[in-house]
Amino acid sequence: MTAGKSLYQALSDYAASDFYPYHMPGHKRNPAGGEMADYHKIDVTEIDGFDNLYHAKGILKEAQLRANRLYGADETFFMVNGGSCGVMAAVMAATEPMDEILIARNCHKSIYNAAILQGLIVRYYYPKMISDYDICDGASADEISVLLDSYPEVKAVVITSPTYEGVLSDIPGIAAVVHGRGKILIVDEAHGSHFGLSSHLPQGAIAGGADLVIHSLHKTLPAMTQTALLHVNGDRVDREKLRGYLCMLQSSSPSYVLMASMDSCMKFLEEQGQERFAAMRGHYESFCEKTVSLAHIHIGKMTNLSQKKHELKGWDLGKIVISVKGTNMSGKELADILREDYHLEMEMAAQTYVLAIMTLMDEATGWQRLADALCEIDGRIEESTDDAGSVPGKSALNRQLKSRMPLARAFHGEWETVPLQQAAGRVAAGFINLYPPGSPIVAPGELLDEVVIRQIEECRGAGLNIQGVSESGEITVVAS
Amino acid sequence: MTAGKSLYQALSDYAASDFYPYHMPGHKRNPAGGEMADYHKIDVTEIDGFDNLYHAKGILKEAQLRANRLYGADETFFMVNGGSCGVMAAVMAATEPMDEILIARNCHKSIYNAAILQGLIVRYYYPKMISDYDICDGASADEISVLLDSYPEVKAVVITSPTYEGVLSDIPGIAAVVHGRGKILIVDEAHGSHFGLSSHLPQGAIAGGADLVIHSLHKTLPAMTQTALLHVNGDRVDREKLRGYLCMLQSSSPSYVLMASMDSCMKFLEEQGQERFAAMRGHYESFCEKTVSLAHIHIGKMTNLSQKKHELKGWDLGKIVISVKGTNMSGKELADILREDYHLEMEMAAQTYVLAIMTLMDEATGWQRLADALCEIDGRIEESTDDAGSVPGKSALNRQLKSRMPLARAFHGEWETVPLQQAAGRVAAGFINLYPPGSPIVAPGELLDEVVIRQIEECRGAGLNIQGVSESGEITVVAS
Repeated sequence: MTAGKSLYQALSDYAASDFYPYHMPGHKRNPAGGEMADYHKIDVTEIDGFDNLYHAKGILKEAQLRANRLYGADETFFMVNGGSCGVMAAVMAATEPMDEILIARNCHKSIYNAAILQGLIVRYYYPKMISDYDICDGASADEISVLLDSYPEVKAVVITSPTYEGVLSDIPGIAAVVHGRGKILIVDEAHGSHFGLSSHLPQGAIAGGADLVIHSLHKTLPAMTQTALLHVNGDRVDREKLRGYLCMLQSSSPSYVLMASMDSCMKFLEEQGQERFAAMRGHYESFCEKTVSLAHIHIGKMTNLSQKKHELKGWDLGKIVISVKGTNMSGKELADILREDYHLEMEMAAQTYVLAIMTLMDEATGWQRLADALCEIDGRIEESTDDAGSVPGKSALNRQLKSRMPLARAFHGEWETVPLQQAAGRVAAGFINLYPPGSPIVAPGELLDEVVIRQIEECRGAGLNIQGVSESGEITVVAS
Repeated sequence: MTAGKSLYQALSDYAASDFYPYHMPGHKRNPAGGEMADYHKIDVTEIDGFDNLYHAKGILKEAQLRANRLYGADETFFMVNGGSCGVMAAVMAATEPMDEILIARNCHKSIYNAAILQGLIVRYYYPKMISDYDICDGASADEISVLLDSYPEVKAVVITSPTYEGVLSDIPGIAAVVHGRGKILIVDEAHGSHFGLSSHLPQGAIAGGADLVIHSLHKTLPAMTQTALLHVNGDRVDREKLRGYLCMLQSSSPSYVLMASMDSCMKFLEEQGQERFAAMRGHYESFCEKTVSLAHIHIGKMTNLSQKKHELKGWDLGKIVISVKGTNMSGKELADILREDYHLEMEMAAQTYVLAIMTLMDEATGWQRLADALCEIDGRIEESTDDAGSVPGKSALNRQLKSRMPLARAFHGEWETVPLQQAAGRVAAGFINLYPPGSPIVAPGELLDEVVIRQIEECRGAGLNIQGVSESGEITVVAS
């Protein structure tokens, strides 16, 4: 019944048959099931012929093999709880409780969460900032090497590449350093699911030799939100353990709609990927030509910078950093104008820039609308007389604090609430994050000092979004 | 833009506007995005006007309030990683590492997973079996009371009610016992999301006084698979901690399609719930009349039995246990005949019965097709001369093993593989489950003895689905 069909086709055919469901889900594919009844047609459970995600032997095994062929890893898993769950499963499969792990400080919060759940001792790598754009640079193999010399007990290294803004790390170089010491390399490539799929795109972490690679499919490819892939290479990580954690961290009723979406995305990429990525390259070049003469707004090609530094091949066309640094306009103001006057919704607005995400699904008109709007707005902007170098968030994120206890111990222990201004000398119980980028200024277990407290106050004074400090200026610390 | 609309309506209106997405998801709502492009229309991310699930202040807060009004708990949370994630968050919010917890042995595996991640010491309540149907009975307040006297350090009690087969526990009685000792009651009501919504249905665990109640919406209501609700009553559980775990165990990119599905389901229940549940009652009674004269097949009204025993009000109309015990047909054979000859797909086939799930979305024809098929099949069945009392699975599930170490320690320690037949005296490292019902015969940390090994062998010999024993008959044990 299902041979050779995509999961979506097989589910659609089944829905059109006279089979009657005496099973979950409760909507029973009844077209009278409310305003979203159309979404119920292909929403089934693990009935005969439709396999089981956690013990896949049939159509879901085939679907995962299709994805695996496209990316070329040793094994590929579908995930329905986002890249977050994949990162957690990867970290937990690569470690045991009380193990040490080295993570880039700008990693996604799911990595910190895994460290708490697994009770890990965390060592940090602080990426440098690219000062022209106030964003984190990629990780350097040399710096990772020095850190691994300092922390020989580290079991696994976790790097986010590309970053949210599209900056690449030297994965082959880092993999050589990490594997040379017999350790595991996990790459959170959530923002680079499109990598390796075309000669116009970076090669990506699977080809770069990482042991575990996490792709958040929905970020840059035509798949539904919350879909993700986990790729495994080699045998440094126990696959059975990995499967166990994937099963533990995801619903025991995984959505067939989300699974079908992943399979349909793979089919789409097989059929139209090459052509669409080539077209995207053309759109990108036209966009660069149209915006090259902007006087005040600066279009960052982050990965070009990174390319020079790390000699990477290719760059990500999909992350457009639009900088208004040194002008009288903030990133947030630019995003508001684009939204309100032009009906263009940006991915993110930071202090000095906005971020636009472009994918193979943007046609010429999408690129054109953005270029036209930026050319118009550029005429309204003036240079600023303020000190262009004063970005409180940047310095706060780079402050390296002393750790007094493991994340998990601070997180699980007794807490109390104190005013931030009186917290010097106390140990943080929660995270204090700057959003965007969402990275921690302070992590649980770290000793707060006068400098970081002043830096956090400066961020709050500048109107930045600080998570972990209450409106009345209080934070949680380990009870004394 | 979104005031007063359902989330689905607001998302649909937005998709029809001229707003252009320079943000995730990567499909960009482009209709050329493959065979599932229609599913992308309302699939957005946390853009302006569409709130944030983990810091809900706008349309997602309204949606969760709508659900909360319907169920009447103190607070209600949407979840996109299924009831599994809700159960885990509930257990983890109610405990600290190394705490003791009392769980019914027939709980869902997510509770065992939470115990591993949180490093809990687990005490078990073994529900009695209802021998007429070889299924677990509900939990008894008196028995829980005795166990809590034996284990005074227990912090929280977890009960599954209704069971998969629809058997109810006496939640008000259990809540009185648990709260009387200052402990927390968590009820996994995954199979009872419809409870409390009509006078034709049981009252449910929210009204029964549980502190935390988990609803798997898709199981019995018109909502998409993987959607779930977590309800909180009172202040025995720290809500901030609960929110933290919900955020930790779910994707940082929750699906707006799944969230819209939950909201649309609530709207549907508000508008049509009463009428449809009353109609369901009528269909149920007609079905009972049509099947009352069956000679060999026995339609179990599980919750009637339970009602007599525990003096519960009402019963679940939605779980039809169709027993072939004492005949020459097995549950699996019955399910195969129903599927192949009648195109009726059952929820589950056990050794001596099949389970049909009926909901408010089953129209008369669905009930009729099942009744007609059963009447026909009944004519083909004969009484069996085999010993009707011999059900190896039942006795294996009731064998209470000694615990030698906490779940987490056995799970994380060094493992080795040994033949099951040589495992007496060893400590299990993994689960050995009987599926269905999916409950553990052996949990990690438990001492294997000759009796349980023989019971497991008998289950395998009877062709039952035993998970955790390899095809060649090996199991994992803690390394000696």
